[in-house]
Amino acid sequence: MNRSSVGAVPNPDALLREMMLHYELQRFNNLYCQILDDGALSAWPDLFSDDCVYCINARENEDGGLPAGLVYCEGRGMLEDRAFAISRVAMYAPRTVRHYVTNQRVTEVVEGGGFRASANYLLMEILDDEPKATIHHTGVYRDRFIRDPSGALRLRERRCIYDSLIIPNSLVYPV
Amino acid sequence: MNRSSVGAVPNPDALLREMMLHYELQRFNNLYCQILDDGALSAWPDLFSDDCVYCINARENEDGGLPAGLVYCEGRGMLEDRAFAISRVAMYAPRTVRHYVTNQRVTEVVEGGGFRASANYLLMEILDDEPKATIHHTGVYRDRFIRDPSGALRLRERRCIYDSLIIPNSLVYPV
Amino acid sequence: MNRSSVGAVPNPDALLREMMLHYELQRFNNLYCQILDDGALSAWPDLFSDDCVYCINARENEDGGLPAGLVYCEGRGMLEDRAFAISRVAMYAPRTVRHYVTNQRVTEVVEGGGFRASANYLLMEILDDEPKATIHHTGVYRDRFIRDPSGALRLRERRCIYDSLIIPNSLVYPV
Repeated sequence: MNRSSVGAVPNPDALLREMMLHYELQRFNNLYCQILDDGALSAWPDLFSDDCVYCINARENEDGGLPAGLVYCEGRGMLEDRAFAISRVAMYAPRTVRHYVTNQRVTEVVEGGGFRASANYLLMEILDDEPKATIHHTGVYRDRFIRDPSGALRLRERRCIYDSLIIPNSLVYPV
Repeated sequence: MNRSSVGAVPNPDALLREMMLHYELQRFNNLYCQILDDGALSAWPDLFSDDCVYCINARENEDGGLPAGLVYCEGRGMLEDRAFAISRVAMYAPRTVRHYVTNQRVTEVVEGGGFRASANYLLMEILDDEPKATIHHTGVYRDRFIRDPSGALRLRERRCIYDSLIIPNSLVYPV
Repeated sequence: MNRSSVGAVPNPDALLREMMLHYELQRFNNLYCQILDDGALSAWPDLFSDDCVYCINARENEDGGLPAGLVYCEGRGMLEDRAFAISRVAMYAPRTVRHYVTNQRVTEVVEGGGFRASANYLLMEILDDEPKATIHHTGVYRDRFIRDPSGALRLRERRCIYDSLIIPNSLVYPV
């Protein structure tokens, strides 16, 4: 990063276009998290493209060039299977999750359509029989968005990179 | 939710109007939290309409159709009484609170004026004699905003829905 | 704060200008945190003006008119020395930090250029040999931004005001 590019001001028209894209990113992430926080898992795969990649990986592995990770799904069909399985099998303690997504940024507008983006997320977990919310884990979304024929955003790729070496066993729900 | 509506792109003018409303929501919530985080309780009722409802309720009760909850105030007068009482009676340990509000969204523009909105909040608490900040609780604001004659936003209703079954006894300040 | 000014609506053009400034603030803070979260310390001083002030201070001290605090740096040179020293001396346990910045607001547009702003931040810490993320501390940024000749934002002053009386010894990285 060179100093002159830090926070450089585009002209007002370019700034406005950038703002609108940033707003679309925020709106998408809000919807994504609302679906998961409400436990509406069957709607979750709809946020991805047919040929998507979704994975959850440790930062250490990611930085070391080991992209497969704890969870690795290719194609929306795999996400639908996963969502269906989680909805029907309840072998884990009842809980609520809540996502806090901040520091959202479009990192690259891709020629030919779509963009790359990232965001910090904090996942909180509230067990039904525990009095207090606890931190489940912290991490970063690294995303590749495309548009479907109607212009709506879809995740072509979402990599959830968690900061800790390990992650609680209770990682059942998507992140 | 059907797939085609997920993240659909309105035309630029509609997107810009939506952004402006979203920005007004953010600005309002920033001010709301700043007032509470600064302990400026006497300014808090001014954020509500005269005929407001303010309540704090458990998610389980809310989902089960029990809307009354832990705190239930009708009318700005009740909020003023509450703010005054808290300011004058100090039976609890000195503390600081800090709000983190994310995932803000306008959920419905209401015909005839105003809108519905929601947001995730994380309330942190810092006791004066404890070294570390702790999580007080997590939850969601479910709001109904109206505009006063000058066009300024006021809360007609704010429902603070907390995720846990119980909430720390120390819930003294408004959320 | 008087009631009539709470959330007052400027005309659409003024609201749009305000939004654009708010977006620039968000973009700057996103970049600032990304640099620190990625451990790219050498890029951190570039976010400040040559004659900057950077400090970390307890809320109690700040409110009591004791501005010097735990860390006090004058001039970008001091920040560069600090960043260099931290990069080279590793006497502390390996860790990751993650910033969550919310409730960002431009508090005053300063005549002659730049503006004042504030934001709530939550600093999380993830030690390499601990399974879970922990709360490092909570606080507020109180900022004075200026523009360099190219129009890019620079921090003329960033005061990191933490809420607790003390702060973990492990405060090594900038906040």
